[in-house]
Amino acid sequence: MSGRPLDVLEASLDEPVTVSLKDGTAFFGVLAGYDQHMNVVLEDAADAPTLDDALGDLDVESVEDTTIIRGDNVVAIKA
Amino acid sequence: MSGRPLDVLEASLDEPVTVSLKDGTAFFGVLAGYDQHMNVVLEDAADAPTLDDALGDLDVESVEDTTIIRGDNVVAIKA
Amino acid sequence: MSGRPLDVLEASLDEPVTVSLKDGTAFFGVLAGYDQHMNVVLEDAADAPTLDDALGDLDVESVEDTTIIRGDNVVAIKA
Amino acid sequence: MSGRPLDVLEASLDEPVTVSLKDGTAFFGVLAGYDQHMNVVLEDAADAPTLDDALGDLDVESVEDTTIIRGDNVVAIKA
Amino acid sequence: MSGRPLDVLEASLDEPVTVSLKDGTAFFGVLAGYDQHMNVVLEDAADAPTLDDALGDLDVESVEDTTIIRGDNVVAIKA
Amino acid sequence: MSGRPLDVLEASLDEPVTVSLKDGTAFFGVLAGYDQHMNVVLEDAADAPTLDDALGDLDVESVEDTTIIRGDNVVAIKA
Amino acid sequence: MSGRPLDVLEASLDEPVTVSLKDGTAFFGVLAGYDQHMNVVLEDAADAPTLDDALGDLDVESVEDTTIIRGDNVVAIKA
Repeated sequence: MSGRPLDVLEASLDEPVTVSLKDGTAFFGVLAGYDQHMNVVLEDAADAPTLDDALGDLDVESVEDTTIIRGDNVVAIKA
Repeated sequence: MSGRPLDVLEASLDEPVTVSLKDGTAFFGVLAGYDQHMNVVLEDAADAPTLDDALGDLDVESVEDTTIIRGDNVVAIKA
Repeated sequence: MSGRPLDVLEASLDEPVTVSLKDGTAFFGVLAGYDQHMNVVLEDAADAPTLDDALGDLDVESVEDTTIIRGDNVVAIKA
Repeated sequence: MSGRPLDVLEASLDEPVTVSLKDGTAFFGVLAGYDQHMNVVLEDAADAPTLDDALGDLDVESVEDTTIIRGDNVVAIKA
Repeated sequence: MSGRPLDVLEASLDEPVTVSLKDGTAFFGVLAGYDQHMNVVLEDAADAPTLDDALGDLDVESVEDTTIIRGDNVVAIKA
Repeated sequence: MSGRPLDVLEASLDEPVTVSLKDGTAFFGVLAGYDQHMNVVLEDAADAPTLDDALGDLDVESVEDTTIIRGDNVVAIKA
Repeated sequence: MSGRPLDVLEASLDEPVTVSLKDGTAFFGVLAGYDQHMNVVLEDAADAPTLDDALGDLDVESVEDTTIIRGDNVVAIKA
C-alpha cells in the first residue's frame, strides 16, 4: 500500500476513504473514482464513519449520493 | 455511476445537480454542460431543490436562467 | 442554449449578461467578447439591469464603457 | 471596439485606461504595453483621472512613472 | 543528502518525515511515496514524534493510516 | 520605454526600481535580473529610496544584499 | 552576482541564505538544492543567523535538519 499518491488512490478504489478539505470540512465515502488532479468521486458507504475515520479534530460527514470533489480543495485523503 | 470525475459529469447531463462553491453558496439546477476545468452550465430545473439536494449545512439556491459557473470556484458537485 | 461553457458564451455574444466576481461585486453589460480563460469584455447595455439580472443577493452595477474582466475573478456568468 | 479581451487591449494602446486590482486599489495611466497574461505597462497620462475613470467606488491613482502591473492582480481594465 | 528537492524526497523514502501545511498543522509519518507535485504519502511510524520532529512552534500529529497529502498544502518537509 | 512588460524589465536592468508586493510591503533596489515569471533579483542601490520611489502609501525598504523576489508576490514594478 | 533568479540560486549553493515565506516566517540555512519552481532545500548552518540575515522585521529561524520548502510559499530569498 506504499507507492506514489495516485497509486494509493488506485489501490483504494471501492474502499472507504476520508477526504479533508481546505475549508475545514471532511467527507467520508467509498472512493468510486479519481483523476490526475486528485478530483475524486465518493459514494455512500454502507457503514457510518467511525472514530478511526477522523482526521485530527475534524468532524466527518458521510456522503449520501455520488459526490464529485474538486481536487484543489483537498488537503488530505486517508485511505 | 462510478468512474472518473468527468465521467460522472457526463452521466449527469440533463439531470439535476447541486454545486457547492468556495464562498459558501450552492446552486441547484439541471446540468446542461461542462468542460475539463469543471466549468459547468446549469439551467432552471422544473422542480425546486429538496432537502436531499442539500450539501451539509449550505442553503441551496435554484438557478433561474442559464448560468455558467467557473470551475475554480467549485468545491463539490452532488450528482 | 445547452452545451459547454464556452459554447454558451459564444451564443451570448451581443446579449446582456451578468458577471459575478469573487469579491462580491457583479457587473451587467452586453457581452462583446471572451477567450478560453473566461476573460470577458462587457459593453454598456442600453437598458438598465432588472431584478431578473440579479445573482443571489448581489447588487449589480452596469458597465458604462468597454470593460475587460480577468477570468480568474469570475464566479458565475448568467446568460 | 468589441472583440476578444486581448484585442481590446491592443486597440487601447496609447490610450488612457483604468486598471482595478484585487487589493481594492486602481491605477490610471496610458496603456503602453501588455502581454498574454494581462500583465500591463502604464505610463503617466497628461490629464488627471476624471469621474468617468472611476470603477465603482474605487479611488483611482494616477501613475507617475512607467509601472508594470502583474496580471494576476487585475480584476478589470476599463478601456 | 544535499541535492534537488525531489532527490531529497527520494532519499527520504521509508524514513520518518514531518510535513507542515499552510493551515498551520503538521503531520509526522514514514514517507511511503511522493510525486513531482510534492503530493506525499505518509504511513504510521512505529515511534512517536519527538521534540526533534517539531517544525517551529507547530504541534505535530502522527498519521495512523496511509494518508495522502496534496502537495499544494505543503509549506515544508523536514527529512 | 513603452513596450511589453518584459521589455520594460529588460530596459530597466541596472536601474533602480521599486517592487510592491501583495503583503503590502515594497522593496527598492537595482534590478539585477528577472525571468519570464517576473521573478526578480534586486541589489543594494547606492542611493536611498526617495519620495519619488513610493508606490501609493507604501513604505519602501531598501534591499541590502542580493535578494530574489518570487514573481507571484509582485503587484507592481515601478521602473 | 547579478543575473537571472535561478542563476543567483545556483551561485548561492552551499552558502547561507534567508528564505522568507508568505505566512510571515523566515528560515535561515545553507542552500543545499533548488529546482525551477523555487522549491529549495536548506541544511543546518554552523553559524547562527545574524542581524544581517534579517529580512525586514521578520524573526529568522535556523533549520536544524535537511528541510525542503515548497516554492509557492516563498516571498524572497536573500543570498
